[in-house]
Amino acid sequence: MNAEVRIITTQVGIVGGGPAGLMLSHLLSRAGIENIVIETRDHETIRNTHRAGILEAGTVRMLSETGVDGRVLTEGHRHDGVDLRFNGTSHRLDFQDLVGESVWLYGQTEIFVDLAAARKRDGGDVRFSVTDTEVADLETDVPKIRFTDANGQRFEIRPDIVAGTDGSKGICKHAIPKEKRTDNFIAYPFAWFGILTEAPASAPELIYAQSEHGFALISQRNEHLQRMYFQCDPEENPDDWSDDQIWAELQRRVDGPDGLTLKRGPITEKMVLPFRSYVCEPMRHGNMFLAGDAGHTVPPTGAKGLNLAFADVQVLFDAIEAHYATGSDELLDGYSEKVLDRVWKAQNFSYWITTMLHSRQDQSTFERKRIQGELNNIVSSRFGQQYFAEAYTGWPSA
Amino acid sequence: MNAEVRIITTQVGIVGGGPAGLMLSHLLSRAGIENIVIETRDHETIRNTHRAGILEAGTVRMLSETGVDGRVLTEGHRHDGVDLRFNGTSHRLDFQDLVGESVWLYGQTEIFVDLAAARKRDGGDVRFSVTDTEVADLETDVPKIRFTDANGQRFEIRPDIVAGTDGSKGICKHAIPKEKRTDNFIAYPFAWFGILTEAPASAPELIYAQSEHGFALISQRNEHLQRMYFQCDPEENPDDWSDDQIWAELQRRVDGPDGLTLKRGPITEKMVLPFRSYVCEPMRHGNMFLAGDAGHTVPPTGAKGLNLAFADVQVLFDAIEAHYATGSDELLDGYSEKVLDRVWKAQNFSYWITTMLHSRQDQSTFERKRIQGELNNIVSSRFGQQYFAEAYTGWPSA
Repeated sequence: MNAEVRIITTQVGIVGGGPAGLMLSHLLSRAGIENIVIETRDHETIRNTHRAGILEAGTVRMLSETGVDGRVLTEGHRHDGVDLRFNGTSHRLDFQDLVGESVWLYGQTEIFVDLAAARKRDGGDVRFSVTDTEVADLETDVPKIRFTDANGQRFEIRPDIVAGTDGSKGICKHAIPKEKRTDNFIAYPFAWFGILTEAPASAPELIYAQSEHGFALISQRNEHLQRMYFQCDPEENPDDWSDDQIWAELQRRVDGPDGLTLKRGPITEKMVLPFRSYVCEPMRHGNMFLAGDAGHTVPPTGAKGLNLAFADVQVLFDAIEAHYATGSDELLDGYSEKVLDRVWKAQNFSYWITTMLHSRQDQSTFERKRIQGELNNIVSSRFGQQYFAEAYTGWPSA
Repeated sequence: MNAEVRIITTQVGIVGGGPAGLMLSHLLSRAGIENIVIETRDHETIRNTHRAGILEAGTVRMLSETGVDGRVLTEGHRHDGVDLRFNGTSHRLDFQDLVGESVWLYGQTEIFVDLAAARKRDGGDVRFSVTDTEVADLETDVPKIRFTDANGQRFEIRPDIVAGTDGSKGICKHAIPKEKRTDNFIAYPFAWFGILTEAPASAPELIYAQSEHGFALISQRNEHLQRMYFQCDPEENPDDWSDDQIWAELQRRVDGPDGLTLKRGPITEKMVLPFRSYVCEPMRHGNMFLAGDAGHTVPPTGAKGLNLAFADVQVLFDAIEAHYATGSDELLDGYSEKVLDRVWKAQNFSYWITTMLHSRQDQSTFERKRIQGELNNIVSSRFGQQYFAEAYTGWPSA
């Protein structure tokens, strides 16, 4: 047995090497806390898993001020506002004027690339392409993480603390016994049809468009590539749609008296993104702490997923740092409650703007018109705009 | 025929002598515009139809600044805030600090009394206890209002303009042909159990309490009489409840670590108030204009009913005054769209706080916790508090 399994002792074992796991590893290493990250996917696969990225100011600061890389500031695009469009009319929310903040457009993939490079540069221990990962003995002082590395070698990590950052399909949350875990879940009766197109930007900022034909999001990536989405049936097959049909569908959802016309180009990617909201409670089990998608999933409408993950990571890092610096477990013990407070605010925000902007077939005329009243209330009230802008750009940390 | 029906020619015929109709009549008479009000109920019946009354500042100004009576300012109670209570913890929203406004606690019945007295004082033509009311020829230049007065005399009013202010059960909206009218409607799966009690006030301001047992509203009337409500089943029979049971139900919905204890007294009135939201579109048909409950109903949670009626009346008065002063129908033609803009905002606000504060048996744990996140977001954000306070105290008129 000893010959077959190599034992590694460390302070923090991190299961999952996406942005959340790598960011935590980066912060811990800076603070002199030993850690190892394992990840089932290979570097190339993650690097090519494109996700839209709207970063809150706090997320940008975590990247730029902790020495990951300043690329987010030079290659990312600062957006000082967003366009809320309904009844064919645009209403710009000016985040700087309203709440003194901005957001950054920067792909989640780029964040992974930056973090992975920083971990490599700083000598971080990150092991990709592992298999047969298990977590065990979480309620003891010596929790275990077992895995097989890319060469077939079996390992057992014996950390003080396990961080579960293995995403929505990860194993960590399932290690919390069912009787100790509440799975809070809702499904939505729609999805997003997303495209990547080789075209110039149709607008300088994101357009969230509500229309009688359903929701559309006009986003950007860079000068030559754009991302756009429109609400569709979850069972939609992307291959059933021609480019012309896709452009017609997107265009009619932004049509209005101002004659907004989307700039078309070849469509190089088509996908259907399902919607779900999920929260695991608690976010801690024994010496394992969940962070990011491993503990919660939001629909993409509010762009909260990655930001919420980084907010978790900051709270978890502060708690682990205090544990080693002072011996006090007060912050660790308060971790789950503290992060869930923000998680539920973000779940509410994501649910709110999702239900407000998307159409449902079972909607009554009362419901449709009430929502128009709500949109009118937001854009006609400075307080309404501020309430929205504060949530979108990210609440101050508690 | 001529011997049997007396013809009255006037400028504005007002169907319905509740607060909305009397307020409109008062404003028109002050501007020298002839009008007659008819009302099916008698003065005593209306005077004894008690309704809770939270008045927006704009409503108070309409009463106090147009010479109705200053009693609202001396006998009404100014409230500078409200208590939003959830998880057994109170969160005061300070309206003056947040938006520089207040609301007034003043019974709707008192407003009726004040307005009826002012109409009598000023020689207004208000006919109570009429029967067999009809409106006809609304799309012609000579619309008709027919009725039989308390003495059995049949009349026909021939006004230029008909104002439909006959409440939610009135005839006016039904005079809009079905094919020209949209009835926007939703029902709620709960009602309010309301009491009037001879007790001192339990709190200086209204308490909106959300709890796992359902919603409760702790309101006041004066130093000796209090109004309180708790969410109940619409089929509840008030006579099935003993005073002790009522007090226990109210108390457990406000229980919390602060030990808030309701002050009890004899319960002198018990009732069940059903909930509905309704909007008639358009609010105009030919030369008839709907105002107040005749055109829309809100659930009582947001206390918007009477305030919305007075907002309609102000817009309608301005339009009628412009019609006679300048000959321009521009404001009359814009009436329906203009008032519906505010109506839908108020419908949304009423729906929002109703669904946020009341429990539903079919609620998932996700939904319950999302709503806790929403309440947390409101009270932890100055912008959230302001957005709420602005809606509660009343949006500025457009």
